[in-house]
Amino acid sequence: MGFRVVCCKTGFYTCYIDTIKILFFNFLSLRKGMDHIKKYIDENRDRFVQELFGLIRIPSISSEADHKEDMVRAAEYWRKSLREAGCDHVEIFPTEGNPIVYGEKIIDPALPTILVYGHYDVMPVDPLELWESGPFRPEVRDGKIFARGADDDKGQAFMHAKAFELMMRTDSLPCNAKFMIEGEEEVGSMNIGAFCLENKERLKADIILVSDTSMIGLDCPSITVGLRGLAYMQVEVTGPDHDLHSGIFGGAVANPANVLTKLVAALTDSEGKITIPGFYDDALIISKEERDEMAKAPFDETSYKERIDVAALFGEAGYSTKERTGIRPTLDVNGIWSGYIGEGTKTILPSKAYAKISMRLVPNQDYRKISELFENHFKSMAPDYVKVKVESLHGGQAYVSPIDTIGYQAASKAIETVLGKKPIPVRSGGSIPIIPQFEEILGIKTILLGFGLEGDAIHSPNENYPLENFLKGIETIPYFYAYFTDMWKSK
Amino acid sequence: MGFRVVCCKTGFYTCYIDTIKILFFNFLSLRKGMDHIKKYIDENRDRFVQELFGLIRIPSISSEADHKEDMVRAAEYWRKSLREAGCDHVEIFPTEGNPIVYGEKIIDPALPTILVYGHYDVMPVDPLELWESGPFRPEVRDGKIFARGADDDKGQAFMHAKAFELMMRTDSLPCNAKFMIEGEEEVGSMNIGAFCLENKERLKADIILVSDTSMIGLDCPSITVGLRGLAYMQVEVTGPDHDLHSGIFGGAVANPANVLTKLVAALTDSEGKITIPGFYDDALIISKEERDEMAKAPFDETSYKERIDVAALFGEAGYSTKERTGIRPTLDVNGIWSGYIGEGTKTILPSKAYAKISMRLVPNQDYRKISELFENHFKSMAPDYVKVKVESLHGGQAYVSPIDTIGYQAASKAIETVLGKKPIPVRSGGSIPIIPQFEEILGIKTILLGFGLEGDAIHSPNENYPLENFLKGIETIPYFYAYFTDMWKSK
Repeated sequence: MGFRVVCCKTGFYTCYIDTIKILFFNFLSLRKGMDHIKKYIDENRDRFVQELFGLIRIPSISSEADHKEDMVRAAEYWRKSLREAGCDHVEIFPTEGNPIVYGEKIIDPALPTILVYGHYDVMPVDPLELWESGPFRPEVRDGKIFARGADDDKGQAFMHAKAFELMMRTDSLPCNAKFMIEGEEEVGSMNIGAFCLENKERLKADIILVSDTSMIGLDCPSITVGLRGLAYMQVEVTGPDHDLHSGIFGGAVANPANVLTKLVAALTDSEGKITIPGFYDDALIISKEERDEMAKAPFDETSYKERIDVAALFGEAGYSTKERTGIRPTLDVNGIWSGYIGEGTKTILPSKAYAKISMRLVPNQDYRKISELFENHFKSMAPDYVKVKVESLHGGQAYVSPIDTIGYQAASKAIETVLGKKPIPVRSGGSIPIIPQFEEILGIKTILLGFGLEGDAIHSPNENYPLENFLKGIETIPYFYAYFTDMWKSK
Repeated sequence: MGFRVVCCKTGFYTCYIDTIKILFFNFLSLRKGMDHIKKYIDENRDRFVQELFGLIRIPSISSEADHKEDMVRAAEYWRKSLREAGCDHVEIFPTEGNPIVYGEKIIDPALPTILVYGHYDVMPVDPLELWESGPFRPEVRDGKIFARGADDDKGQAFMHAKAFELMMRTDSLPCNAKFMIEGEEEVGSMNIGAFCLENKERLKADIILVSDTSMIGLDCPSITVGLRGLAYMQVEVTGPDHDLHSGIFGGAVANPANVLTKLVAALTDSEGKITIPGFYDDALIISKEERDEMAKAPFDETSYKERIDVAALFGEAGYSTKERTGIRPTLDVNGIWSGYIGEGTKTILPSKAYAKISMRLVPNQDYRKISELFENHFKSMAPDYVKVKVESLHGGQAYVSPIDTIGYQAASKAIETVLGKKPIPVRSGGSIPIIPQFEEILGIKTILLGFGLEGDAIHSPNENYPLENFLKGIETIPYFYAYFTDMWKSK
């Protein structure tokens, strides 16, 4: 089957397909032959959820050292799941950090290969007191699974295990499948790069498929085609070498907490612009035409504000909300701490003050260069009465996925088949630093087939994932395999 | 014995005594008759220290609710100590907060009465990891007692119990003694004011004696004649109603931690001046003559900086280090916190950001007015995309003790007798909010007979109190009683 995609914008928006009829017939016939998908899901949905709960119950927080054993337990859980789902070969690869689970099912080397990437590690859970149910005690309320990792990324990655099981059990796997599930995504994927380098042959594939992003909604599906990069820094400001009495020394000795507020405050101006010299130099400027296209995506500011309970929005002057998260870089304090933070009062002049500050980056901004610009600027602003340490905690490049590929087209068709609407391509404000690395190291493009929602509170208390999204995800994936294989054969 | 004190400055510095000869003879005769003091201390010093350790081992942190029972235990310890030392009547008075221990020994209503004030509560101990030995496991290293409360104020207040015991056991108590030991000094002495109001008659005295301040050193003794006031505030800035993913929302929603840094940074300018409108309006301006006198007190900037390991000092432009802590108000962040403060990274846009900010005040600055100015200014600066809450946690007025009183003269003589040098009157940067209240409610002046050192790390990890200061304090107190009684009789 020959078809040609003509894209009106680089990596963006509506495409024109000139072999629409051929595809239409193909689409109908595929739809007809896929009734087993819904049936299998209906018969097994409760088990799918219970198996996901088993994974969620393992508190695999990668940023906290005392969860080291939980990382191994979560990897083992994935090994067992992939083997039971039908992988021929499953192996846990140790790394310098947390292990990587690899599994594969090669049905015919002449067929295309889909490499699924996901992660079994999760974010920390504080503030714990804001959770309505235990972060590692998953439960379904109002049709949603509540737990840390329910969406990001246990729930979403596990859809692939179950969809693969479905194809194996119904004898409908149309191509080869590989799985690579890591345990360090939330801390910067420090070791998967080396793993990819050492396993280039093993990881050979035609497309990487990842469910770790969100869509606008099941009634307004979208596919993420852009991810922001990330430069995550930690700063430490030291005044005196121990906490001092704020009465005896206050006024005469610089307070590092006061100094830190001045340094951090000076990183942005009153218009929301980042003041680090050179910060914007390389940032990709999006054309007016593209911005006009983006503006067409549905956005309801009132409900957006209501959902997070803020009276007004604030961001970089001259850009819309969607632009501020989609095409512009940011600088956010993710954490700040100094001195006495307990109940009541303590009259100290603290010795040290810290902040975790991350910047989301757009295409062409190199995170290494930005981290260096940040460090130099922060240090240059620091007065001589304090000592300043700046550390880069992790980083990653921005990513743009073109939509004129069979990978994107297969994803679009699969979603349209299951949800009844053609998805719109959108840029997400989030970052998955490993995605651009995959392309660099393995030379493979990634499709971000995300079923999360913006309201899923990932990284926050009460993270959740609608059960329907979990099940629709499982339903969509086999269509992706089928369309992708068909299109690959017709290339 | 008649004598006259002519003071060259209001409440400050060198005095001329025209009956020097009479005093000299009296001084010698007193010195001679006081050999029992040193003897008793030598014979009992180990027991004194062990008894103090017993008090220190009770973790009576008044700002932390789960130490409620420890407050009662500490009060009981004081009751027992005062009874065993020789008080006729000892009683624990419940308050709405922590109990107040009262004890007295009335030998003759016609004689003067000294009312000793102290506190059994201590500051919190975090950061715990910086302590070299347990904060509530007192031990002597390098001649110093290391523990929370070793100086402030268990060690210093306990000197009075032991000096009183000494006078009772050696039959040398020259006047009446009263004790009032509270458990809320570190959290603003909320209930002792009401206690004083209800017990005016019981608390009648000629002077209040307090050891809760420091001196320059045993080789350069000083007496604190000024204390700063305090206004302690807590601010809370709320952005979204829950933590958000900093990728998905970053750039479009104001980050309350970023906003907090801007608000706090704006409270002071680059010259160390506080920018709250009206803040300095009532602050007492010290004359050039007084500042010139103050400048004569010894101060070694190099060793001051070395002791706290800072390369440079910073404070309000136009004032010396001693002036910045002694006669000028300040604004210090005592604590700040928001978002993720654990190990590693977490990419959130926090919901809330907090800071504890206290201002040390100088005479004539009313802490209630300053708290209000702070609150109004902070709220007025807050942009509409965040919610701001401002709370006053506690406050107290500044205090100045004149030196042309028999109380000050007796203290000066007692120190000179024991340490061999006339103490210099100094203004401390610290605050003891109850001291000005005593004068207001009871009409009694306070003498601050402090034996702490600036290096004692009070309120900090590794708080300590030199054993020698503890023992010299016990030795000095009976001289104060004797001189004060003599001078009172000669009035």
